[in-house]
Amino acid sequence: MKHYLTINDLPSIKTAIQEAIALKSDPYNYKNLGAQKTLVMLFFNASLRTRLSTEKAAKHLGMEVIILNVTDAWQLEFDSGAVMNLNKSEHVKEAAQVISQYADVLAVRAFPNLKDKHKDASEWILTSFVKYATIPVVNMESATSHPLQALADAMTIEELKTKKRPKVVLSWAPHPKALPHAVANSFIEMMQSIDVDFSITHPEGYDLDPNIVKETPVSYLQEEALKTADFIYVKNWSNYNAYGENTSQCSSWMMTKGKLGSATFMHCLPVRRNVVVECSVLDSEQSAVIKQSNNRTYAAQLVLKKILENEE
Amino acid sequence: MKHYLTINDLPSIKTAIQEAIALKSDPYNYKNLGAQKTLVMLFFNASLRTRLSTEKAAKHLGMEVIILNVTDAWQLEFDSGAVMNLNKSEHVKEAAQVISQYADVLAVRAFPNLKDKHKDASEWILTSFVKYATIPVVNMESATSHPLQALADAMTIEELKTKKRPKVVLSWAPHPKALPHAVANSFIEMMQSIDVDFSITHPEGYDLDPNIVKETPVSYLQEEALKTADFIYVKNWSNYNAYGENTSQCSSWMMTKGKLGSATFMHCLPVRRNVVVECSVLDSEQSAVIKQSNNRTYAAQLVLKKILENEE
Amino acid sequence: MKHYLTINDLPSIKTAIQEAIALKSDPYNYKNLGAQKTLVMLFFNASLRTRLSTEKAAKHLGMEVIILNVTDAWQLEFDSGAVMNLNKSEHVKEAAQVISQYADVLAVRAFPNLKDKHKDASEWILTSFVKYATIPVVNMESATSHPLQALADAMTIEELKTKKRPKVVLSWAPHPKALPHAVANSFIEMMQSIDVDFSITHPEGYDLDPNIVKETPVSYLQEEALKTADFIYVKNWSNYNAYGENTSQCSSWMMTKGKLGSATFMHCLPVRRNVVVECSVLDSEQSAVIKQSNNRTYAAQLVLKKILENEE
Repeated sequence: MKHYLTINDLPSIKTAIQEAIALKSDPYNYKNLGAQKTLVMLFFNASLRTRLSTEKAAKHLGMEVIILNVTDAWQLEFDSGAVMNLNKSEHVKEAAQVISQYADVLAVRAFPNLKDKHKDASEWILTSFVKYATIPVVNMESATSHPLQALADAMTIEELKTKKRPKVVLSWAPHPKALPHAVANSFIEMMQSIDVDFSITHPEGYDLDPNIVKETPVSYLQEEALKTADFIYVKNWSNYNAYGENTSQCSSWMMTKGKLGSATFMHCLPVRRNVVVECSVLDSEQSAVIKQSNNRTYAAQLVLKKILENEE
Repeated sequence: MKHYLTINDLPSIKTAIQEAIALKSDPYNYKNLGAQKTLVMLFFNASLRTRLSTEKAAKHLGMEVIILNVTDAWQLEFDSGAVMNLNKSEHVKEAAQVISQYADVLAVRAFPNLKDKHKDASEWILTSFVKYATIPVVNMESATSHPLQALADAMTIEELKTKKRPKVVLSWAPHPKALPHAVANSFIEMMQSIDVDFSITHPEGYDLDPNIVKETPVSYLQEEALKTADFIYVKNWSNYNAYGENTSQCSSWMMTKGKLGSATFMHCLPVRRNVVVECSVLDSEQSAVIKQSNNRTYAAQLVLKKILENEE
Repeated sequence: MKHYLTINDLPSIKTAIQEAIALKSDPYNYKNLGAQKTLVMLFFNASLRTRLSTEKAAKHLGMEVIILNVTDAWQLEFDSGAVMNLNKSEHVKEAAQVISQYADVLAVRAFPNLKDKHKDASEWILTSFVKYATIPVVNMESATSHPLQALADAMTIEELKTKKRPKVVLSWAPHPKALPHAVANSFIEMMQSIDVDFSITHPEGYDLDPNIVKETPVSYLQEEALKTADFIYVKNWSNYNAYGENTSQCSSWMMTKGKLGSATFMHCLPVRRNVVVECSVLDSEQSAVIKQSNNRTYAAQLVLKKILENEE
């Protein structure tokens, strides 16, 4: 594997899930694989889980880790041909090449601005690093995808499922802020790639990118959609059509104990209690959110391992 | 030892002081004890000594260290049952459980707001982490105590004392800002636990929490109180009764060469020169402040060692 | 070598260049030299290359690295005898001594304010750390010099030169912000120390400190000065006489393909594209900027190695 930008970069998704689960039982099994290799983690946005789990994963493999918040350096210019006489001190062309001198793998987190659909869809930040860096790039959540999260989510379903083909529903939830589509997108792509009975439910008008959703069934009737679900993945996203707008905060879409039934509750975190989901759900045995966050370590480790092995 | 929240969590304070001093002469003696263990240090407030000394201590034990400034992530909600529709992105319930997946020990620094005496006394931040984390928690200075500092201070007195039972005086000092009571509280508790002749002097009205001070003699006459002292620990704290107010900045309480006499000067640092203490005191051979800061490493190392040994 | 404050601290500049180039071919050759030694890197200003390359260098030598942004702690007081009743929480006297307890080497980055020529020239920040720290200090760019950059630059010229005594020209460039003189100063001193045909070209009035420039030829006619150059080092600096003012942004001084001719283009980065230099220069094979940034690692490693060896 060269880069990890979307889940489709995995040589085999099903094998990756199994291998990531196997890493969990013996995290230090490949502790020399990353010896004398450096992971640089570049953050344009805040992070808790991604930061800690990815650093942990790299250490399990014996890598050195250097973390750079973009605020520790300066603003980068991404436009090719720009006359840089304003507030951007360095072009990504140089920054990416320079970091490539100091690192063996570069992980980048860069959220969308949710103002310009076309620009966000172009993944201008992530693809600039891929273009100019001379080392493998790992997506720690970009404008449109969060493939480390999706791999951790698939591991969690694989570990908890009690039937061969569980029913999985992605259910939209209200949120006070306009959030990206990345987590939903990657979760959908992952569910389309594994053996589950998958559907999506959200309020009318909240349809996601049709190039992602494809043939996946979509319902505007939440309670009906959730019936007999084995796993319910709850997530807010802002309006994709009225791009980046927060057109609905309808609290009737909040996940409750009643709607959950006997299903397993999933969420990528951070989660707004009593807005996205009732406390009683999160605090119950049916919540898988802590297991999901734990699996982030092994998802990242699987990805770094594949990249390091490819380089050998 | 499970957690280290106050000095009373030490199995034996006197033994701990001796063991910490012993670590100093051979810091890498237990360099494999923390192998494949991770310390996450979580900072809600600025730090120089605590950050560096605790990281150093963990490295001496072979631990991995991950530092997270809360500003690198997002604001946490602490109220149980809150409807999280404002500016707090994640509840400490999730954050503490999640970090527990990535760490073996969690160290937390969180100062009081000094607005609400009852809330500060409840130690709501630290106790939330203790409640929800599933790993040991170390107090790197909380609303009401700073037990790593107190252990380093006790080591310093033990190393420098020239008589079996030295006279130690805690002397209030003026300061331009309203400061917490944590350092004073933990120092008092520590002095009450070891074999010293201990008393406190401060201006009238600056009495500390009576549940901490207990039977310790208190004088409002500084010069009298300091007479024949072997160690004078100088520290500002804001008014405890007029809670969090800075009612006095009376410069007559500044420590001077004259008042110090032949005593050893102690302070936790950072210190305001010529406000809290005269330059001539800090720059003299009688100042123990650098030794105190050095002992912070071995105090933290003793604490981490006890926690790691307990976990084995 | 005790400290590394300017290039003149190197026991032999020519030998240092050769040794640094040798480190590059086997970076981990001295991987145990820094075992159980800690480098603390203290940043008063933003950094990308310096931060990453110096951390990498230390890791190559087996050192532990602790990074402290001054914003993670608090503002330091530098004035001796100050009454610290304002916004400075700690004096550099204490801070430097305290950090010396936790580190074996201290690296400091502190830019000038460009307001007070005399104060900047005094190198008050760097020299305060040298004065009060009890461990070796490395200059990661100070008010008036950037000796790690100059060593990397000399390595780059040594690696790329095709004649015994190449012609090297330092050419001023326009920039929207007022920049320090540090890079130019150290480059000049380095060129004066090695076997090159060196000259400087800049607009009239942009003369640098005569104590640095000394006998080096200076021309106000850029195109004439650049003729037959083998290496052209392009760099903006603010006015030294009208101290810290940005009196000219004359775009005619921008480096172009035409002016470059067949010379190698050098710049310390970050660089403003199409302001300091045309895109076509940076994107050509004649640009050495990425090699320069790579050499920063081995320049820092040579310096740390010399310091560690001295300590043994």
